[in-house]
Formats: sequence, C-alpha cells, structure tokens
Amino acid sequence: MPPLRTALLQSSGCPGRVDRNIDALDAAARRAAEAGARLLVCPELFLTGYAIGADVPLLAEPADGPSARRIGGIAARHGLAVLYGYPELADEKIYNAARLIGPDGVPLANYRKTHLFGDFEQKWFTPGRQPVVQAELDGVRIGILICYDVEFPENVRAHALAGTDLLLVPTALMHPFPFVAESLVPVRAFESQLYVAYTNRTGQEGGYEFVGLSCLAGPDGTVRTRAGRGEELVVGEVDPAFLRASRAANPYLRDRRPGLYRPLV
Amino acid sequence: MPPLRTALLQSSGCPGRVDRNIDALDAAARRAAEAGARLLVCPELFLTGYAIGADVPLLAEPADGPSARRIGGIAARHGLAVLYGYPELADEKIYNAARLIGPDGVPLANYRKTHLFGDFEQKWFTPGRQPVVQAELDGVRIGILICYDVEFPENVRAHALAGTDLLLVPTALMHPFPFVAESLVPVRAFESQLYVAYTNRTGQEGGYEFVGLSCLAGPDGTVRTRAGRGEELVVGEVDPAFLRASRAANPYLRDRRPGLYRPLV
Repeated sequence: MPPLRTALLQSSGCPGRVDRNIDALDAAARRAAEAGARLLVCPELFLTGYAIGADVPLLAEPADGPSARRIGGIAARHGLAVLYGYPELADEKIYNAARLIGPDGVPLANYRKTHLFGDFEQKWFTPGRQPVVQAELDGVRIGILICYDVEFPENVRAHALAGTDLLLVPTALMHPFPFVAESLVPVRAFESQLYVAYTNRTGQEGGYEFVGLSCLAGPDGTVRTRAGRGEELVVGEVDPAFLRASRAANPYLRDRRPGLYRPLV
Repeated sequence: MPPLRTALLQSSGCPGRVDRNIDALDAAARRAAEAGARLLVCPELFLTGYAIGADVPLLAEPADGPSARRIGGIAARHGLAVLYGYPELADEKIYNAARLIGPDGVPLANYRKTHLFGDFEQKWFTPGRQPVVQAELDGVRIGILICYDVEFPENVRAHALAGTDLLLVPTALMHPFPFVAESLVPVRAFESQLYVAYTNRTGQEGGYEFVGLSCLAGPDGTVRTRAGRGEELVVGEVDPAFLRASRAANPYLRDRRPGLYRPLV
C-alpha cells in the first residue's frame, strides 16, 4: 500500500467570512493536489473562524448544509479528501464539529468535539457523545479528534484500540501552550502507535494568539513535517508499511493490562 | 509547605555486587543530604544490577531482607528518604520491585512493577497486581511506578486520580529510546498535573546500553533538573504551591469524561 500524502493547511482564514474561507480552502486544495496530496486537513472551526462569539449560532450549518456541498465540489474537483472544522447545527443544538469529505466529494465522517475547552466553547457548544469516529481512505483507517480532545491520552488510546492509523486533529491551540504542539502531540503518536496530523490556526484573533506549529507526527515520535508560526501549507507522508513495522517493534497495545485501569472510568 | 528537595542518583552501580551498590547508595545519600535533599531516588534494580540474568533468583530478597535493613540505617543516618529498585522474593515468586524507606529508616511503601518489559523481565519476574502504591513524605503524596509502567498513560492517570503529587520512577531505559526520557516523561507530568522523578541507569551492561537522561519534570512540562549520559547525582525541587497553581490553571482532571473511556478497560 503506497504512502498517503497528507497536507496541513495552517491558517486562520478570515474570521466571520464563510465565503472567503471556502475560497481559501479551494486554493489550498489546488496547491495540495499539485503537491500530490490525497488529503487536506484544515484547522478547528476553519469554515467560520474561531473567535466569532455571538456569531456562532448565526453561522452554524447542518452537516449537509450549503457549505458542505460547496466543499464536496472542491474535493471532487481536486481529487483529494478534505477535513474541515465548522459549527454544526443539529436538533437545535450547536456542536464544535469536523467533517471529512472523500476525494469523490462524498461525505465520509462527521465528528463532534467531546472535550470542550474553556468558557467560550462551553457557552456556545454542546459536547459530542461519540468518542471514536472513523472512515477509510486509500486503505488507511482515519480517525478524528478536535484540539483539546487530543490532550487527553484516553481519547487517542480509544482510537488506537479501534484501529485508527491516522488521527486528524484540527485545532485552535493558543498561547501559552506551544508545548502541546511541540511535545504532547508527538508523544501521543508514539505511545499509541499511530500517525497524528495536527493542524492549527495562527496569529491574533479576538483576544487569542494562536501558535501555529502544525505537524504530522509518526509512530516513532518524530515529525514528518512541521509548520512555523505563520500561514503555511505543509505536506508529509503517512506510510502504512512503516506503521506496521513500528507497531511490531513497540508493543504498547499488546502489553496493556486493561484489568488494572478501572480507576480511569 | 516548603519545596521538597529531591535527588536522583543516575548510576549503574556494580552489577551483581550488592555490597558495593549499598556502599554507593550510602555515598550518594550523604551527598544528597549535604545538598539539602529529603529524598533520594535510585534506578530500577539498583541493588543488584539489571543485566544479571540467572542471578536474579540468587540475589532476590524479601522486602524486609538484610539489604532493606542496611538501607534503612543509611536513610536514618543521613535523614532522608530513599527509593531503590531490587528483585523482591515473596511467596516463591520474584517481583521487579521498588521500596521507599522514610528519613527515620522506617519503610513507607513497596511497589511491584505491573508492566514487565521484554523477554528478560518476562522470564524472571512476576508482574505486580496493584497499580497504585502511595506514601506520604513531608506533606507530599508520593507514588511509585517502574520504567515501562510510565510509558502507559493509564498508569500515570490512575496516580493523578488517586492524588499523587510526586511520582517516583526508577528506570532502566535503553538505546534506542531516549525519546521516552526527553519527551514522554515531561508530557506525562503535564497531562496528569504532577511531578515525575525519573531516575535511569547509564552505560553498557550486558547487551544493553542505558541512556541516562534522568530528570525531574514539573506539571508545566518543563524539567527542573536533567542529567546527561554518564554517572551523576542531580537535585531539583518539588514545589507544592506551584503544583496547586498549575492544577488550577490546567483542569485536565476536572475536564475528563470517564463515561466515554469504557473502551480502555
């Protein structure tokens, strides 16, 4: 099975302007496809912006809303899968969600953030209730978490136990937490033996300062590609053969003793 | 509550020579006490050496055996607590254990490694069955894990949930895994909001090459002290006030959603 080239769009887009963000996504998808990528990962709430306060309910859309259909067209036109964060409207609730659309424009998965971060998110969003959401792309099992979710080792472990090979993590990591992007994300990849594609926002937005540092981390704990602090599109490879060999050499999942972990639940 | 000065003895001692290792422990305890330490942490199986093969059953001792009594005398003479790794003989089984003796020479805790690493350990040792062992020292709640145990986030999380402030981890970390000492241990301290004192062996022993890099990591993910690759005694501070403030600012334990973690057990 050949490596899956994966592009990470590190950008804050244009907060509050959905049309402009879809245009930026289209441009990034074209560049990613030209670089041979089969998958483009955008940041948390990329569709609308993160620091949009009371605009959250105004800009929220159903999972199959008009923006989803436009992004499906972009994916199909460029022949690559797209993951993007957006505020999802469902049953009169709003979720901090991420949607994966396949290279043919057909939706593959939709995930609702289970671990909301801080006052802003807890005010506007309802926490998701399904910890593991997966899809298949070119023989690679894809999983989705959002930002704060990945800081809890339990969430990544659940994905590893369910067979996730590549975990997509759109994020909005802010100052003073670069440690999460620099150290925690590579450790998650190592301890649970999978790839993690962690795609961040960047620059000032409202009172937040996003720290960039998006990365694709491998199961050996090294990063395949790492962005700086500014707007950037980076590309790295997810190699199923390397992953298989790494899992054979690092038997964390086989050496677990679940009977001892009851205090965690 | 004043900071607890903690000394880490990074050393391989003299494999197979228990008397010499107790002498080395005595000398280190004197130096640690002179540096103001109230606690000395020695590596995994420091009493006997790690790569001792068929000598494991010959050198194993009960928890309160003759070596324990000598080390109790050393702790009392220098007025500091001592944690040391040793092969424990109990009920005709042998455990890879670590024993904590208080500054008055009285035993405080005994822990048996629950996650054995590789063929050598699985051949000679029985895995422990109690995941969380704790003791109190100068108002700080101490926990104990051994080496491979700490690489499983579940084990450290169980300690955090049980209130451990300072996790002592005697280890025998070998090539090619310096990533564990350099990145994984600080991430454990950060994600579970506690201090981790990780004390390694060093140099060649049998077919192993131990990588040193012992460290005391704080709940902000930075290291308070870090050894190099050779024999070394390093000292750092565990600050209860800093820990309290860090836990208030990083609410990982409060933001967990245990109901979602059932796949882990």
